[in-house]
Amino acid sequence: MSVRVELVAVGTELLLGQLTDTNTVYVAQQLAASGIDVLGTHAVGDNRARIAATIRAALERVDGVITTGGLGPTVDDLTKEAVCDALGLETELHEPSLRQMQEFFAAMGREMRENNRKQAEIPRGARVLENPRGTAPGFIAFDAAGKFVASMPGVPREMKPMLAELVIPYLRERFAIREAIYTRFLHTINIGESEIDHRIDDLFRASENPKIAVLAHEGQCDVKIMAKAASREEAEAMIAPLEREIAARLDGFVYARDDESIAAAIVRLLGERGKTLGTVESCTGGRLASALTAVPGASAVFMGGVVAYDNAVKIHELGVAEGTLAEHGAVSEATARAMARGVRERLGVGVGIATTGIAGPSGGSPEKPVGLVWFAIDDGEQVQARSFQFRGDRDAVQRRATVMALGLLWRALAPR
Amino acid sequence: MSVRVELVAVGTELLLGQLTDTNTVYVAQQLAASGIDVLGTHAVGDNRARIAATIRAALERVDGVITTGGLGPTVDDLTKEAVCDALGLETELHEPSLRQMQEFFAAMGREMRENNRKQAEIPRGARVLENPRGTAPGFIAFDAAGKFVASMPGVPREMKPMLAELVIPYLRERFAIREAIYTRFLHTINIGESEIDHRIDDLFRASENPKIAVLAHEGQCDVKIMAKAASREEAEAMIAPLEREIAARLDGFVYARDDESIAAAIVRLLGERGKTLGTVESCTGGRLASALTAVPGASAVFMGGVVAYDNAVKIHELGVAEGTLAEHGAVSEATARAMARGVRERLGVGVGIATTGIAGPSGGSPEKPVGLVWFAIDDGEQVQARSFQFRGDRDAVQRRATVMALGLLWRALAPR
Repeated sequence: MSVRVELVAVGTELLLGQLTDTNTVYVAQQLAASGIDVLGTHAVGDNRARIAATIRAALERVDGVITTGGLGPTVDDLTKEAVCDALGLETELHEPSLRQMQEFFAAMGREMRENNRKQAEIPRGARVLENPRGTAPGFIAFDAAGKFVASMPGVPREMKPMLAELVIPYLRERFAIREAIYTRFLHTINIGESEIDHRIDDLFRASENPKIAVLAHEGQCDVKIMAKAASREEAEAMIAPLEREIAARLDGFVYARDDESIAAAIVRLLGERGKTLGTVESCTGGRLASALTAVPGASAVFMGGVVAYDNAVKIHELGVAEGTLAEHGAVSEATARAMARGVRERLGVGVGIATTGIAGPSGGSPEKPVGLVWFAIDDGEQVQARSFQFRGDRDAVQRRATVMALGLLWRALAPR
Repeated sequence: MSVRVELVAVGTELLLGQLTDTNTVYVAQQLAASGIDVLGTHAVGDNRARIAATIRAALERVDGVITTGGLGPTVDDLTKEAVCDALGLETELHEPSLRQMQEFFAAMGREMRENNRKQAEIPRGARVLENPRGTAPGFIAFDAAGKFVASMPGVPREMKPMLAELVIPYLRERFAIREAIYTRFLHTINIGESEIDHRIDDLFRASENPKIAVLAHEGQCDVKIMAKAASREEAEAMIAPLEREIAARLDGFVYARDDESIAAAIVRLLGERGKTLGTVESCTGGRLASALTAVPGASAVFMGGVVAYDNAVKIHELGVAEGTLAEHGAVSEATARAMARGVRERLGVGVGIATTGIAGPSGGSPEKPVGLVWFAIDDGEQVQARSFQFRGDRDAVQRRATVMALGLLWRALAPR
């Protein structure tokens, strides 16, 4: 069975470009994963007639509408009235919701105002969606033909559990949806989207369920394997052979599955190999250390880092020879190697990684243009040094150089 | 005069929650600033009938529709056909666009395929929107009543200049829109949204044009002053007295205007005062250095930093006494002070700033819970040390501690 819905986000602020409507993308993603088809999304201002017209038009195309926002206590909150207009309903007071709100305000030590009372009213005959995290309940209201409008608050902290615990289970039950979409991510680095396409194109074309998609980010690509199945176990059995085949074809580039980041994979590998790490950064300016220290438990393997912006720091804190800097310059293979060795020795770590480059906008030259970055990794036995030329503005060069440093570090640590 | 539009973003990927539709929020923001009213936004999949129905429904409510996406060369690109369906038009070949595309492919050294040819077709009678940055031109098509549909490619790099240079000027000219909205931002730090509301509430209520809004971010608030005026000069004259009054009431909290970040304000203040800076970070793990080095020209005042994750780094690289760590612990006022002095002396900088705290999820204790962070700033003459208790997960603690460090640093450098 299936159900088709459209989404309506309510709020004038969504039309002014002042904020991004993250609710809609979240709801769409959760519904898609739950086997519920989203055919369109809309944003509309705090205008009763326009909200009602948008809902009515959608109900002519699909089985139901899911709204977010506009359930608060102020005069600008008009979603409930608009839903009633669209469905030809009156509101009625829902006593349990009123009691729950009274308790909520009492627990917060705040006084409940008269305009909060209207939040306990729901369209006649609607199912109440309880909201223990806030004041306004949501609801699912119906028209004479059985089409539905599910309305949730716009506050993400209240909306997300309501969607997961009440709205999606209701829809899956009512429309007898047995299957859901289960997803496996394979995260790759150091390989381009077109090369991945080239290597797995036949699988991509042959496979309908599971379906394969390649999503490119900055310097990284994710291969997404999506299986439509009645359970996680059934989906895993469908995904496993395809995952093995793709992993084999992308051998040496897949750094993690599902939720693990490249930095988390590096922290895990360091732990497995009993090694410690130190960083020294010039052009990436602390971003590499930030990425690594974002991982819970990083302190077990990441001892510390140096942001060596000024040459004096390179000389005094890392022991880079003044002659090296004078002869080759700060952005050079020799300096990168000396920095990596310096941080390894100074911090007494197993692996040292260095970045030095020209982030721009100034500081470039014909021989060393903006975007040139040298990387070196010193593990005490051998040193790898490489340079890359990155495009873009200062922020792009810094971001791309950080991803590349992580990719090179992962490659140096990964089992062969 | 005025014009009212709705936006339609085309692409099935927008309905799956796989990516956020950044085009719609961008277009909405640019149109609002240009005095063009956006009454609704929609996203719809790559389905000709549904795109056409969405456009037709919108044209019954407003003067025109602006679409993004679906103008590419593949069979999934159906926006042009759907616009023709909605307006009752045929397509026609636009010879200049065909020639321009041929030249584009020749310059790229790529072969132009037959399916690219269809990109040079436009709805009969439409205005062509040239696209020198890509292959597909955009267009503005019309129905018999003069309502319009402006269609732009979905690639932001192509869409943004087309909007600014062609679509907005056309609409302002045709609908005789003389005014635009000019905005001044005052960025504050170290003061909460409710305190700002309290201080400027009367201005907020009294002022219709310019309008005032307060936007809260993490640890920072922006006061936005929006003037509707016929020119930047006229707007500035309207904004200036209000800006002076607000700045006076928020004295000591406003760190910058318009596009300047808190880190950029710090780099500017350091330059004005002829001082250099060094950072030493434990729990913020490089984020403070990253924020500072994101500023172009930071290298003139930011000498470098240390990410002192392990205690050994605090001892050997910064000269923090082992006794201090043993007696007070790594997260303590004494250690923060010793770290700030250590980085100032070791890097030979004018100002040293230190962060040390418990980012979590583990490492907390009843006396020193997760989220406790000590900050110290040492300028050689005096040392300021403060602690804060931040809420949230590891990422939230790291982000909030970084913003706080920047706020404290700004306050220490700002003129009194």
